[in-house]
Amino acid sequence: MPLKLYDLAGAEDDRRFSPPCWQVKMALKHKGLAVETIPWRFTEKDAIAFSGQGRVPVLMDGDTTVTDSWEIVRYLETTYADRPSLFGGTMGESGALFIKFWCLQAINPLIFQIILPDLLQHLHEKDQAYFRESRERMLGMTLEDAAAPHDATITALRTALTPLRQVLARQLYLSGEQPSFADYVVLAQFQWARSVCPIQLLAQDDPVYQWRDRLLDAFDSYARGALGYPV
Amino acid sequence: MPLKLYDLAGAEDDRRFSPPCWQVKMALKHKGLAVETIPWRFTEKDAIAFSGQGRVPVLMDGDTTVTDSWEIVRYLETTYADRPSLFGGTMGESGALFIKFWCLQAINPLIFQIILPDLLQHLHEKDQAYFRESRERMLGMTLEDAAAPHDATITALRTALTPLRQVLARQLYLSGEQPSFADYVVLAQFQWARSVCPIQLLAQDDPVYQWRDRLLDAFDSYARGALGYPV
Repeated sequence: MPLKLYDLAGAEDDRRFSPPCWQVKMALKHKGLAVETIPWRFTEKDAIAFSGQGRVPVLMDGDTTVTDSWEIVRYLETTYADRPSLFGGTMGESGALFIKFWCLQAINPLIFQIILPDLLQHLHEKDQAYFRESRERMLGMTLEDAAAPHDATITALRTALTPLRQVLARQLYLSGEQPSFADYVVLAQFQWARSVCPIQLLAQDDPVYQWRDRLLDAFDSYARGALGYPV
Repeated sequence: MPLKLYDLAGAEDDRRFSPPCWQVKMALKHKGLAVETIPWRFTEKDAIAFSGQGRVPVLMDGDTTVTDSWEIVRYLETTYADRPSLFGGTMGESGALFIKFWCLQAINPLIFQIILPDLLQHLHEKDQAYFRESRERMLGMTLEDAAAPHDATITALRTALTPLRQVLARQLYLSGEQPSFADYVVLAQFQWARSVCPIQLLAQDDPVYQWRDRLLDAFDSYARGALGYPV
């Protein structure tokens, strides 16, 4: 029986843009585990009430339900320990955790500012009011005020990616010569953007672009094949 | 025969403030390797000309000379593979490399701005002109212009430490339940400050302060015992 994953969707069932869900989906591919993804919208709280909370990703593995992207990935690493490792041990797991928090601080807010108008266009109609209300409360400003002029923010984003770029000057992936969870954490940010926004965030001669390209090719172009924009 | 390390010193032989040298010294302690440190000043290029370059740390292990802090630490990990690991494998090494570049981008420039006036006071007299000339060229401004008002920069530093603080909400060290090289990379930034500057960078109720305190206690209070300020 394949695993099941509740996965945030936009207007169309197959427009999947949630970064934490992308982290889990890439981790499942890395482990070679088949998954059935179930499109879910922000306002469908009832559909996942069985999980005891109201956010996705929610993973169901037989009788086991796991919530929170980090806990899901740790669950996969432990439960499927005989398959390729996502962390390569405690220190690798700690490094991936740091990179996850770095993304949230340094990368996520900049991409959010850039893609916000496009993201709004691609939300399901029934999520529009919820998204606006919850995000405006979180941000303490209107979504129109939160959206930044693109050029300056793209420049800031490229500068913010400096530590990743410096690692990639020495090795093919953030995790070494093979990709692993630390790579998927950052890729998930770009999948979020690509799924809703036609703006090119990275210059083609940027090693980060080339790294992302390799990850888009991975697992039979799994991430590249997602509904979105070829940027 | 103990290893030898050329280690940057200030006015006094035992005022050692170089972050890359601190990274190597903590790595040597972690490996349980004895080292004789040799005080060196920026302008003593002749003393390390044998290494083929002009910067410290320079490690001598018998007939082997290794330069560049990252290469030295990799050398120690490989050469002394039977001793406690600094990285815990390829993914851990990659995580530590990322954290090293993150420090250079996000932490180092802020600490530099805060401690600069004090750092100048503690340089050896013969290094004063070299330091000023080389740093002003690097920065494109006078050292007086580079020094920032403290309060705002300390606030910015504490904000910049967010990803570390978030990891420490889940575990005792950046590397897991035991410290390792990723921890020493960040500790080295604080050792740089502590060795020359009496300003308190961290609030005592900050988990980062408590983490640093545990590292200052490690290896019989090796880092705590260094000449500097008890902040």
